[in-house]
Amino acid sequence: MKFYDAPPAPSPRRVRMFLAEKGVAIATVNLDLTQGEQLTAEFKAKNPRCTVPVLELDDGTCLTESLAICHYLESLYPQPNLFGEDAKEQALVLMWNDIVMFNGFAGAGEALRNFAKLFRERSVTGPANFPQIPELAERGRLRTEHFFSELDARLADSEFVAIDRFTVADITAYICVEFASWIKVSITDAQPHLRRWHAAVSSRPSAAA
Amino acid sequence: MKFYDAPPAPSPRRVRMFLAEKGVAIATVNLDLTQGEQLTAEFKAKNPRCTVPVLELDDGTCLTESLAICHYLESLYPQPNLFGEDAKEQALVLMWNDIVMFNGFAGAGEALRNFAKLFRERSVTGPANFPQIPELAERGRLRTEHFFSELDARLADSEFVAIDRFTVADITAYICVEFASWIKVSITDAQPHLRRWHAAVSSRPSAAA
Repeated sequence: MKFYDAPPAPSPRRVRMFLAEKGVAIATVNLDLTQGEQLTAEFKAKNPRCTVPVLELDDGTCLTESLAICHYLESLYPQPNLFGEDAKEQALVLMWNDIVMFNGFAGAGEALRNFAKLFRERSVTGPANFPQIPELAERGRLRTEHFFSELDARLADSEFVAIDRFTVADITAYICVEFASWIKVSITDAQPHLRRWHAAVSSRPSAAA
Repeated sequence: MKFYDAPPAPSPRRVRMFLAEKGVAIATVNLDLTQGEQLTAEFKAKNPRCTVPVLELDDGTCLTESLAICHYLESLYPQPNLFGEDAKEQALVLMWNDIVMFNGFAGAGEALRNFAKLFRERSVTGPANFPQIPELAERGRLRTEHFFSELDARLADSEFVAIDRFTVADITAYICVEFASWIKVSITDAQPHLRRWHAAVSSRPSAAA
């Protein structure tokens, strides 16, 4: 099994944090995205969408998409449970993971990709080039701010994001909040619940992954 | 258990098709999104993000996000299996479901929401209003066309989207292709594998759901 990583990109960091929670280390190859190492023919053969992370299994299967990779690792290393124990817990974990992805990660990604010079012709991940849309950078920032408020409201009712203990949904949300700092969106004084949760997750050893 | 639906919206149709594959019917409430029935205080109490579908459990828990709802229903009604049997199958199903969501559904949604008059101030789902960005409509259409090519390439290698039989990833992809017809993106003669798969899925009784 081989893990294709690319610090400091946020998506593979989700998998690194997941592995750290499991206390597992696997063979890792680091790609330099600023040098386009995800766009080579060799890497395209592993992932035609040219994204990281990728988990290459011993039979040659290449898993992409952070959630799918974490789900596979959960099967190999079931303790501690990070995807929920019963049907309702599992559904709530998938639900909150998707809420973070569609609202938080999508907005922050739009803001970064449509603003930073590095992505001038690369406003969407993948093999095709799309030029930046400046209005989308601004909309992405606003969406991210809305998402922070929404997450604060959720954390007013719940110690953790999805259920009553730490799960992969907390990992996704934590990396999203960290990623949002790249577009200068930060937790405000009006978001005490989000601040409390962020401090608690930051103190976990896996946050350094 | 109560299902909040909104024909003809694509996301709840994913759940209807999933239920049809299982041969299960559940109590359903239809919302009229053109009348803003998803924005009422009553519905916001069930889903603060004002999206459909929602599955309200008998204990009052409201599940949102189509994938999470389908996963919960899979636990209740395990046959036929639609989420994969072992760790690798399950990971491939989640992976392809996310690929369809992040590339196909996202692009088609951008194209529709940033073009159609109905969504003039509603270019993003949810309680907050965001005005349309015309350039994003065009980019969304191009992304959808790229996604069709990508899906055709996948279906050149595989009878179904994720593994060697029909799964929830096929449902998501099928509804995505159907949704893309709203923005006038259709399967082309250069995409024979996508056409073969689309015809096969269209012939399933669940496609009428």
